[in-house]
Amino acid sequence: MELYFLGTGSGVPSKERNVSSLVLRMLEERGTTWVFDCGEGTQQQILNTNIRPRRIEVIFITHLHGDHIYGLPGLLSSRSFQGGETPVTVYGPRGLKEYIEISLRLSGTHLRYPLYIEEVDEGILFEDEQFVVEAIKLEHGLDSYGYILKEKDKLGELQPNKLKELGVSPGPIYQTIKSQEQTRLEDGRIIARSDVIGPPKKGRKVVILGDTRYLPALKDPLHKADVLVHEGTFSGEDKELAYDYFHSTVKQAAHLAKEAQVGELILNHLSSRYQGESIKQLEEEARTIFPNTTIAYDFYQHAIERN
Amino acid sequence: MELYFLGTGSGVPSKERNVSSLVLRMLEERGTTWVFDCGEGTQQQILNTNIRPRRIEVIFITHLHGDHIYGLPGLLSSRSFQGGETPVTVYGPRGLKEYIEISLRLSGTHLRYPLYIEEVDEGILFEDEQFVVEAIKLEHGLDSYGYILKEKDKLGELQPNKLKELGVSPGPIYQTIKSQEQTRLEDGRIIARSDVIGPPKKGRKVVILGDTRYLPALKDPLHKADVLVHEGTFSGEDKELAYDYFHSTVKQAAHLAKEAQVGELILNHLSSRYQGESIKQLEEEARTIFPNTTIAYDFYQHAIERN
Ligand SMILES: [Zn+2]
Ligand SMILES: [Zn+2]
Repeated sequence: MELYFLGTGSGVPSKERNVSSLVLRMLEERGTTWVFDCGEGTQQQILNTNIRPRRIEVIFITHLHGDHIYGLPGLLSSRSFQGGETPVTVYGPRGLKEYIEISLRLSGTHLRYPLYIEEVDEGILFEDEQFVVEAIKLEHGLDSYGYILKEKDKLGELQPNKLKELGVSPGPIYQTIKSQEQTRLEDGRIIARSDVIGPPKKGRKVVILGDTRYLPALKDPLHKADVLVHEGTFSGEDKELAYDYFHSTVKQAAHLAKEAQVGELILNHLSSRYQGESIKQLEEEARTIFPNTTIAYDFYQHAIERN
Repeated sequence: MELYFLGTGSGVPSKERNVSSLVLRMLEERGTTWVFDCGEGTQQQILNTNIRPRRIEVIFITHLHGDHIYGLPGLLSSRSFQGGETPVTVYGPRGLKEYIEISLRLSGTHLRYPLYIEEVDEGILFEDEQFVVEAIKLEHGLDSYGYILKEKDKLGELQPNKLKELGVSPGPIYQTIKSQEQTRLEDGRIIARSDVIGPPKKGRKVVILGDTRYLPALKDPLHKADVLVHEGTFSGEDKELAYDYFHSTVKQAAHLAKEAQVGELILNHLSSRYQGESIKQLEEEARTIFPNTTIAYDFYQHAIERN
């Protein structure tokens, strides 16, 4: 599981930072890629990576500001043009369906894969064997959401030494034992999986927020996330500006990370007023409050390890 | 007057060529810039040039395929964000108004300058002291237009030697003589402007076409254009492919240029199947028919001289 930041600027693209987009690659876990926000030029950024649009399975849109959605019709079209055939689901606030459908219809675009558009509300969006994904409301002057991804715990590894102690020799029976809670052996004995398996692999919790004012109350839903991606549009000095424009400062994001006891904080959505040295200063600012902070940049890759 | 090609690819962006956009700079002539088509990433291409979005006065859209319009909401928004205040008019086929208005509305974008959207039909779009602009219909499976820009002839220069012969000494009277057809001097004599002025500066004719099948009948409206910008999606060998996909080959474009007796032909909208050496071959192909042919590339600049 790896985060790949494609656009880490805010509002308008600059030479240094494109507008918002972030990819979560889960090639090992599920062979697919999830995309969070899709500002204009996302597909061009992808050309400079080894990300394959046909692997995209889900696109989460945090809110409908142009710098988060104007690349969506192009990415969806190009994925079709390039032979993508598997379904894509797009989640996002109300209005998203109209935006996508009208853009595709007026441009005469016919996708060769099924596209599902789900307008979201707070709560669980979907759950499968691997993940539960939940949307939480933020505060940004228009509907804006954060997405909480909870990976489910995975069974531990079979412990061959324990099986040997019980006199079970390696073979296809090992898979059978792992696949069910109890297994009856040929000699009639019953083996409980829990007796021969190591500790479960704890699922990861990843939180990716859209643009928002500082919301201290998020500390509960964000509790103990392994990674929190939070906007850091402004420096701590510009608290009023951040409030007026429905954004956060890097210090506020760091406070929230600390209160929520997350593992790491990654900041994105930086105002173009900060460049070079002043980006480092922002990072320092945040680290005085929450040391494990990184400011993302375009094409920054970040592996999310299991704890 | 100068053409500045921002995107010369077709369908989907590649590392070599972005999707369609072309700028006509008329800083000297009218202090403004006209844009033809606006595929995704146009505003990012502009970041690598000295083009100023606030100078944009008119945007012409040839047709609504995504690779020609998906950069429009972003460019319009960013122009506002960057302080653009003068009005912008966008011309294009039916459906353009809905596309722009819905994209801006759903993304909560409020432009700080007046935006006029004019859905076009064949015929004259506008005329002012400098230009007449006309739309012509092309054949592309959906409404597609070409734009013919006719610059008006400008008065010649005053000829000081002729004025001296007539005994008129230099002074503010020179401007007066140039500004009207006849001027009565203090001594009662009447000076006809035509007697003291050089030949008129002939206006230029520039034709920029959208995607189209080969249309030999265009030779009349394109007659003697100084510059023709025509799509050249395919090589001459792929005539059937071009026909099936409502595009042209470079040879067809060259034939039209020859028949219309234009001054120069510039080809854009190249399929990504051609790169490097094969682009040169396409250029050779076209030049066997019409020698004054150039294949455009991203950031290619081309001055349009007066004849
Ligand atoms: Zn926003
Ligand atoms: Zn087209």
